[in-house]
Amino acid sequence: MGMVQQSVAGAGRRGRPGYDRQGILDVAVATFIERGYDATSIALLADRLGLSKSAIYHHFPSKEQILAAALDEALDSLEAALVPAGDDAGRSTPRGELAQLEHVLREAVHVLVERLPYVTLLLRVRGNTETERSALARRRAFDRQVRALIEAAQHSGELRSDIDARVAERLLFGMINSIVEWYRPGGRESAQSLADDVVALTLDGLRTP
Amino acid sequence: MGMVQQSVAGAGRRGRPGYDRQGILDVAVATFIERGYDATSIALLADRLGLSKSAIYHHFPSKEQILAAALDEALDSLEAALVPAGDDAGRSTPRGELAQLEHVLREAVHVLVERLPYVTLLLRVRGNTETERSALARRRAFDRQVRALIEAAQHSGELRSDIDARVAERLLFGMINSIVEWYRPGGRESAQSLADDVVALTLDGLRTP
Repeated sequence: MGMVQQSVAGAGRRGRPGYDRQGILDVAVATFIERGYDATSIALLADRLGLSKSAIYHHFPSKEQILAAALDEALDSLEAALVPAGDDAGRSTPRGELAQLEHVLREAVHVLVERLPYVTLLLRVRGNTETERSALARRRAFDRQVRALIEAAQHSGELRSDIDARVAERLLFGMINSIVEWYRPGGRESAQSLADDVVALTLDGLRTP
Repeated sequence: MGMVQQSVAGAGRRGRPGYDRQGILDVAVATFIERGYDATSIALLADRLGLSKSAIYHHFPSKEQILAAALDEALDSLEAALVPAGDDAGRSTPRGELAQLEHVLREAVHVLVERLPYVTLLLRVRGNTETERSALARRRAFDRQVRALIEAAQHSGELRSDIDARVAERLLFGMINSIVEWYRPGGRESAQSLADDVVALTLDGLRTP
């Protein structure tokens, strides 16, 4: 009762505390994962959020727009991993392709851990709608850029050339993406140590030198 | 019409050519993957196989028994990967833990490629029924044996110890299992070269020594 009143009272300019656009998105993503996208209605989301349907429509014109915003968020974060790390003044430091690849792998693990539900949702997309196909196209473009980085590092001699760059890219991100299957926030592995493990395993291997 | 007659004619002792127990299993696994287990009925399988429902029940008492047989097939093959390779006389050759781990990784890639639909089905199991929970328990036992092999190889100094064996096992099989997402039979990668790539990447790393 108190919550409903608060919801009505807070439905003005600032939105209900905790249920601004991002709050709606977080609950929607969790519900899509739990129930499936098709089985999730705006009415169900409104019920879970304690909001009216029109309060949701105020932020998102349709359920598909919620999905699009969620996938954009995962993809924006992943694509940011492709931007080389800058120095303190924000200038990007020129580095070798291998250092860039290591940066991408580390950042991808961080994105996965820190935006776990969003990345989980992205990995479930199968291309059933225009929104899903557009997300898959962005994901493929990301994969191509990683592959180009691997090829460049092979060309410069930093990476071994006896593994096809396309296969290497798929195996690397197959490993990274698989983390969504078992990673639980608050578990004993931090994003940092998981990123260290992935980089150590894939770049230097498990075998003792 | 000719096929129906053949089916009736061949329904005797030898079964219809191509649709013995294994043939029924192959079609059932493909249908479970395409339609989902819940949406697949014995009637649908009978229709796809051109068999009567009772011809299917002759081999499997229930749909769940078909699923159990399919999951057993994937798990039997995976567990066989844990048996050290024998010499020509069938005696197992004593080898170090690292060599055993390499054998398991290679064999797991072969199993995945050669029994792709069966492994795909196994990886979709979520524990909704007793049959699924039993398959998950066998899978976890497999994972524990791989982890014990990694720990033993770390103890003997063959593998680096700065990566937790549990995390290493999950990352290794996360990579291997991800192959079901993109591998297509008849593609340019053979099981052999894919196994070589996985072993090279995970044991020695992508970085040029």
